[in-house]
Amino acid sequence: MPKAVVLLSGGMDSATTLAIARSEGFECLALSFAYGQRHALELEAARALARRFGARQETVTIDLRAMGGSALTADIAVPKDRSLQDMGKDVPVTYVPARNTIFLSFALGWAEVTGARDIFLGVNALDYSGYPDCRPEYIAAFQRMANLGTRAGAGGQGFTVHTPLIALTKKEIIARGLELGVDFGMTVSCYDPAPGPVACGHCDACLLRLKAFAEVGTKDPATYR
Amino acid sequence: MPKAVVLLSGGMDSATTLAIARSEGFECLALSFAYGQRHALELEAARALARRFGARQETVTIDLRAMGGSALTADIAVPKDRSLQDMGKDVPVTYVPARNTIFLSFALGWAEVTGARDIFLGVNALDYSGYPDCRPEYIAAFQRMANLGTRAGAGGQGFTVHTPLIALTKKEIIARGLELGVDFGMTVSCYDPAPGPVACGHCDACLLRLKAFAEVGTKDPATYR
Repeated sequence: MPKAVVLLSGGMDSATTLAIARSEGFECLALSFAYGQRHALELEAARALARRFGARQETVTIDLRAMGGSALTADIAVPKDRSLQDMGKDVPVTYVPARNTIFLSFALGWAEVTGARDIFLGVNALDYSGYPDCRPEYIAAFQRMANLGTRAGAGGQGFTVHTPLIALTKKEIIARGLELGVDFGMTVSCYDPAPGPVACGHCDACLLRLKAFAEVGTKDPATYR
Repeated sequence: MPKAVVLLSGGMDSATTLAIARSEGFECLALSFAYGQRHALELEAARALARRFGARQETVTIDLRAMGGSALTADIAVPKDRSLQDMGKDVPVTYVPARNTIFLSFALGWAEVTGARDIFLGVNALDYSGYPDCRPEYIAAFQRMANLGTRAGAGGQGFTVHTPLIALTKKEIIARGLELGVDFGMTVSCYDPAPGPVACGHCDACLLRLKAFAEVGTKDPATYR
């Protein structure tokens, strides 16, 4: 089986991406990051999801907090109850500077060492276009850079960055995940969960998730406060 | 003064790069990494060099050891007394997978947060061409990716990755550094120093350094065992 490094945050999108990589016949190496998040719930979710799909899982600890600049790493309030229109307008405050670039760079290093030539990332350009590092032209530019900057890539055995969700709606992502056996009750989406694995129901991530489950016509198995 | 993020390892090349960035009128933010090196000497050197050039300095701790695959992070023997011809032949075992990509990604994140639009990296393509992530086409591809994947870059205020040493020989780097007041006795080059700040004199980095100082006609102020 060819190996693939799958970036696994513990959210719905990366869980579905892992299931897709597995269904395409890859032996999956799941890579997660502890980057000063205010909660470790999503890392627990990532580990449980990796076990469920028979993937080796590693967590790299890095401290983005020294860099500041995001609600997910600093003490900026998570915005609540925004309209979908407002969400799409700007780069959200939950944007972490260069996050996908940093994550993909580690995935690239791990792929090179393990002999994997495929990297899976669950970005999604349709529903939530505010993050510049979720766009197809960014992904293509990363892949090109990766193939110029590594021994394996420069040697001609190129890396491919797969983004199987990039053109899907949240509704389609959930449908695909359910089809492939993802238990979405194991995934964590909320930007501001507490206490324990209880979602707020009001941040952008919760609102988009609840809307998508409503569209699919299935109850969201997450717990809300 | 415009800000610039300067990747500072504590070696000769990054020290000279810091001096160049400073001489070009940038307020320098020096970024170093503790990435499971077998010795911390180069980080001490980086901190001392930053102080000397009036730069703020931050160290990001990341663990590349989990990824293995390099003499600088794993327990592979550092090659000694190789000919210059042998050094140029292959990608060296001291190659760290995706290292410059990971380092530049963090530099990009820090630049975006601090408002810096310039990043300095002391790679050098001439004397030591074995690292694919030291080539100009790789640097250009990284810059392109960076400008697609960040809020600032996508917003039109592009990032520039400067590599002022890329076309210089080691001899020219030393000459430029001396001209700008770099004390090379503060820099660490050796891949295998011990005990304390004493260079081995036989690894690729020591051999190239000694050869370059001989060409400049100046005594290398480093201590050799």
